Amino acid sequence: MTERVAVRENVLKENDRIAAELRAGFDRRGIFCVNLISSPGAGKTSILEGTLQALGGTSLRAAVLTGDIQTERDADRLGRYGFPALQITTGGTCHLDATMVQRALGGLPLDALDVLFIENVGNLVCPASYDLGEDVKVVVLSVTEGDDKPLKYPGIFRRAGLMLLHKMDLLPHARFDPAAAVADARRVQPGLEVIETSCYGAPGLDGWVRWIDRRLAAKRSLSPQPLEP
Amino acid sequence: MTERVAVRENVLKENDRIAAELRAGFDRRGIFCVNLISSPGAGKTSILEGTLQALGGTSLRAAVLTGDIQTERDADRLGRYGFPALQITTGGTCHLDATMVQRALGGLPLDALDVLFIENVGNLVCPASYDLGEDVKVVVLSVTEGDDKPLKYPGIFRRAGLMLLHKMDLLPHARFDPAAAVADARRVQPGLEVIETSCYGAPGLDGWVRWIDRRLAAKRSLSPQPLEP
Repeated sequence: MTERVAVRENVLKENDRIAAELRAGFDRRGIFCVNLISSPGAGKTSILEGTLQALGGTSLRAAVLTGDIQTERDADRLGRYGFPALQITTGGTCHLDATMVQRALGGLPLDALDVLFIENVGNLVCPASYDLGEDVKVVVLSVTEGDDKPLKYPGIFRRAGLMLLHKMDLLPHARFDPAAAVADARRVQPGLEVIETSCYGAPGLDGWVRWIDRRLAAKRSLSPQPLEP
Repeated sequence: MTERVAVRENVLKENDRIAAELRAGFDRRGIFCVNLISSPGAGKTSILEGTLQALGGTSLRAAVLTGDIQTERDADRLGRYGFPALQITTGGTCHLDATMVQRALGGLPLDALDVLFIENVGNLVCPASYDLGEDVKVVVLSVTEGDDKPLKYPGIFRRAGLMLLHKMDLLPHARFDPAAAVADARRVQPGLEVIETSCYGAPGLDGWVRWIDRRLAAKRSLSPQPLEP
C-alpha cells in the first residue's frame, strides 16, 4: 500500500506541474477557465448547452472540452451552438487530468478565446483531486440527488469556488431541503458561493451566466497585459 | 505511467484474492450477497431502507455494510429496521475494496445471515473494478440522471447482474426514455435483467424484493451443504 500511495503522490505532483503550465497559459491569454464537476446525470452537459446558447447572444468567445469515459455524445450535443466543442475520451479513467487537457488544447483557438469550460467526467470524488489549471472548480448538485451530499462527498465542496444548486424546477417533486444542503456545504467551506439554476423553467441560467461574465471581467481587470479587442 | 499501471494491477490482483476468500465464505454459509452501485444520490440508501422494512415482515435475516467517504449517516438511517447495519468510512477512497469488507464482516453475525447488502460509495466508475466477493453487482440508474448513462459509463452496466431503473415516480417530470436506457444497457450487456422501482408510490420495491428472494432460493438449492434452519 505504501508503494501505491507513493505512486499516487508522484502522479498528483506531475499533474500539478502540468496544471501550473496550463494556468500560466490561460492567465497570459486572459482566458477564464471553469472546471465543472458533478455526479453523473446532475446536468453538466445541459447547463453547458444553455450557457453556450446564452453566450451566443454576446460578444464572448467560448469553447468546451468535455470529458467522458466512452462515447462522443456530449461533444455532438455541445457542438451545435457555434463554439468549438472537443471530446476527451478517457477510456476508462474516472477523471480528467492536466495531461489530457493539455493535449486537447491543441485543437482550440486559444488566442481567440474568453471562456473555456471543461466538463469533467461524471464523478463527485476523483476529479476533485486533479488540478486542470482552471480558475475555478464549479460543483453542480442537483436537487434530485439528496441534500446529504456535501457532507458525504466533502472533498469537492471544499475545493469548489461555486456550487450550482441545479434542477430547481424539480424541487416540488424531490425530497430535498435547499437550506440544509447549502448549510452543509458551507460547513465544509464557509462562504461558498451558491447559485440556484435550472435548464427547464425558473430560475433558469441567468444568474450563472452573469457570474461567469463578472468573473471574467474581474480576471481581466487584474491582468497586467492589455487585452486584444 | 507504466509504474502506475503495474501498481494498479497488483492492487486489483490482491483484491481479487481476498474477494475469492469472501465469496467462499458466503457460499459456505449460504449467504446471498449483493453489491449495490450507482451515482451519488441515485437512491441506494432509500432502496435499502425500503428493502429492510419489507424483509422485516419475513423470516429472512439481513445485514448491511454501507460505504461512504465521510459520515456515518447511512448506517444511522439503515440501523432503524432491526437488522445490523455497519458503516465503512473509506476516508477519501472512491470505492469499497475487498479488504474493507473483510474487516467489517467481523462485526456481523455471519452464521445467522441470509442476505448481505453492500452499499458501495456513490460512484458509477471506480467501484465497478473491485470485486467484493458478492454474488451479484446491482446497478441503480435513476430516471433523473438521463437515459444516456449506460453508454457513457459502460463498465458497471457490463458487470451488473441486474439494473434497477429507479425513481420511476419522477418519470413524468424527467426527460428520460426508459426504453432507450434499457436498450443501451443491453447493447453493453445483452440480456441484462431490469426491474423498475421507486421508493415513493408505484411501482414500489416489490419486484426487487421478490428478485432477492428468488436468487437466495436458487443459490441455496444449488448449495452442496444442508442449511441450518
